[in-house]
This record gives sequence, structure tokens and C-alpha cells, in this order.
Amino acid sequence: MQRYKCIISYDGIGFSGYQVQPNKRTVQSELEAVLAKMHKGMAVKVSASGRTDAGVHAKGQVIHFDSPLVIPMEKWAMALNSLLPDDLSVLSVEKAKDTFHARYDAIGKEYRYYLQMSSVRDPFQRNYAYQYPYKLDLETIKEASQYLIGTHDFTSFCSAKTEIEDRIRTINAIEITLEGDKLCFRFVGNGFLYNMVRILVGTLLEVGTGDRLPSDIPDIIAKRDRRFAGKTAPGHGLYLWKVFYK
Amino acid sequence: MQRYKCIISYDGIGFSGYQVQPNKRTVQSELEAVLAKMHKGMAVKVSASGRTDAGVHAKGQVIHFDSPLVIPMEKWAMALNSLLPDDLSVLSVEKAKDTFHARYDAIGKEYRYYLQMSSVRDPFQRNYAYQYPYKLDLETIKEASQYLIGTHDFTSFCSAKTEIEDRIRTINAIEITLEGDKLCFRFVGNGFLYNMVRILVGTLLEVGTGDRLPSDIPDIIAKRDRRFAGKTAPGHGLYLWKVFYK
Repeated sequence: MQRYKCIISYDGIGFSGYQVQPNKRTVQSELEAVLAKMHKGMAVKVSASGRTDAGVHAKGQVIHFDSPLVIPMEKWAMALNSLLPDDLSVLSVEKAKDTFHARYDAIGKEYRYYLQMSSVRDPFQRNYAYQYPYKLDLETIKEASQYLIGTHDFTSFCSAKTEIEDRIRTINAIEITLEGDKLCFRFVGNGFLYNMVRILVGTLLEVGTGDRLPSDIPDIIAKRDRRFAGKTAPGHGLYLWKVFYK
Repeated sequence: MQRYKCIISYDGIGFSGYQVQPNKRTVQSELEAVLAKMHKGMAVKVSASGRTDAGVHAKGQVIHFDSPLVIPMEKWAMALNSLLPDDLSVLSVEKAKDTFHARYDAIGKEYRYYLQMSSVRDPFQRNYAYQYPYKLDLETIKEASQYLIGTHDFTSFCSAKTEIEDRIRTINAIEITLEGDKLCFRFVGNGFLYNMVRILVGTLLEVGTGDRLPSDIPDIIAKRDRRFAGKTAPGHGLYLWKVFYK
């Protein structure tokens, strides 16, 4: 048996999220179906750095699995990709130690959120950026984002359905940059709670329109109550960009 | 009755091309269905600058139609877009003279063809660029492209099924530029025959791999026979970018 670590990318639109669900097309079920085929029906369990929701994209999701197959390293990605559907691609495969775990060994993640600031619908961006027709003040958004950096209890910024008890996370960096008519929000942190990036973006947008003040952010954090933060931005603007390991 | 000129954009993947065909989803049929709805069932004929094939995209297709409806000019695009599917969008609507014709008045067009030069499949580009894993010599492609510029009989570079007799066209400019890992071919000319841009690209790629020489191009033109040119590049890399009028 050899453990393999893979970086994968997927267009989230065609998937009901990452994790296996009965009768749904998910990233994990497509990967496990292909591995079962390669292993002549033997079940191969795939573990990821974390789940992504329906419609959420990945540029650099990380998974691991164990296999007894003897395949030259440079052929692994091609072998997997030749069987995978074209909205899911293995970017790289490498050997990992038996103790490597895609989820437990991750020390940080980068997510990006893309907003298309346009009043006219762009058919090419409909699945890949959140079309936002309202005027935004980028400077106040940037100012507000600085209050989020650091170690906080992010209970206000995660889904009320979140079961995990420890909601303390560290955000190392938030960068907001204009790329043509698209606004890119880049979040780097040690971990993100369920819906956290989407709620952070939704709240920052409410600052950008003037409905909230940058200085409201510390109060929202202090409330530790989802109802005080902004709306959850749609999933199709969100990308799991990179997972960091030691 | 007032004639309207519109610039429209569509993601070609979900359409069986521009033109109405029985039992197929086409751009023209979607537009005419929405206009019929707005006109309480009255048929409104839509004319475009030209057809596009299945899978071919448009960033700036031009259409015209006539309507008796009294709608403030700034509301027209929104009214149409609110009824159109999200892979087809009206970018602008303006009043045109009764004699304006989207096809007959066009004096030129710009097409772009996008190639993704990568051996790894990118899920986000699968419908929007032709993934090309082979090594290309860009300088010889550029050299070959210069032989295509000017006024020529492009019979060798159009589908053998082309019914039109006059195959003389003028190409004003061909620009080939690298944008990250994508190669963009930009063609500007007074008109393009059926499959012409895709065959031009397919032939230039065969120069880029070394299977043909740049100096073969004048011979291929002189043959006036489709069999002497290269393969037809896939439709999903092609974009009708702009239509020019006087």
C-alpha cells in the first residue's frame, strides 16, 4: 500500500458539493468511482482537506488515498484524468508518508471570492463570479476587512447550523483587488468554518454599499451570533484556492 | 414599427448554434421566443450578422428586429434579459434606421480563437478554450499567419460544404498573443466563410508543430481545395468578438 497526495481542481457547478451524498453527483463520489474502476471494484476511500458546498469551485483542493497499484508516478494523473469527467481534474499526484492526512495535516487555506461588478449579465461569468450591480466603496471594504484579521471567535460568521464547538480561527490576510470588472477577495487563514468566507464577503459588501460601517465589524464579532452578520454570498463566486501543509 | 440593433453575447456550449433548427435549442429560437412573449404571441423575426456553429461563443454578435412596443430605451436590455436564459445576454439595444440590416450592413468582423497550452486539463476552460498539449513554435506560426493577410480566394480554408460561390475574402489583421497559458488568435477581416477561422487555426497549429512550413501557406491558398489545408480546430475555442458597421 502506498499513500498518495493529489491536488485536484473542479468546476463546482455540476456537483452537489464535495462530500458523498446518496443519489447526488459529488466530487468525492466521482473520485471514488474512478478509483474503484482502476482497482477492479475494490473500494478506495478518498479523504479531502475539507468539504466544499454545492456550486463552490476548487483550484487547489487536496485529497489523499491509499493504493496497492504499481503505476509510474508520471502516469498517475493521466490515468485518473482519462477516467474522470471533464469538470474534475487531477493536477498533480505525489507519494505521501503513511501518516499524511489531507485534512488533519493542513495548516492553512486560501479561499478566493470573485465578484463581477456589472449591471449587465455576462454569460461567461454566470457560474464563476457573483454578478453585483450595486456601487461599492472599495476603500471602506478594505478598512472593514482589517478588523477581521487576527484570531477571533467567528461564531457570527458561520452558519447557525455549524456543529463544531471551537469557532476560534485565525485570518492571516485579506486582500481585495480589482481585476478588470471583477473584484477578488483573497482570504488566507488557518481554517474556515461552514459558510464563513461567504458570510464574510456578504458582510463586507454591506459595508461597501454603506449599509454598515467598517467599525461595526468588531461589534459583530463580539456578538458571537450569526444574526448580526450580513447575508451569505452565493456559492458560485467562491474558490478553494490552495491548501497549505508543513 | 421601430428597428432595433442589439449587441448580444452567448456561451455557445448550450446551443446548437445560432440559427433556428427544428427541435434544437438555438440562439435565434431563444431570442424569438422571448420577443414573441413580449409581443403577446406576435412573431418577431430576428436577423443576425451571421450564423455561429454549435459550441461557438459570441462576445459581440449583432442582431436586429422590428417592434411596435413603446419601451424606454434604457429599459429594453433589462426587459429582454429578464426573460432570456442566463447563457444568453443582451449587452446593448439602440434604435436603428429602417434600412439597417445586421448582416448586409456589416463591413467586417473580428473573431478570436483561444488555445490553452497545457498538458493538464483545466475544468474551468473545458468549454472556453481548446486544450492543446503539444509544443508550438510561436514565431513560425506568426510568420505563417502573414501569408494569409490580404485578399485571397479562401476556398482551401472553408468547409467543402460551403455553398457560397464567391470565396474571395480580405483578412486585414491576424494577431497572435500569449495571455498566461493561453494563446489568442485574433482575426479581423471583411467576412469569413463557413468554418474558415477554425481551419485557419488548425492549419497554423500544424505549422507550429513543424508538420508544415510557413511557406506552405501560399501553396495551400493557390490549390483552392479544402483537402490541402489543416484540420478544423474545435468550435469551443472560437468567439465571434465584434461586428463592424460603417
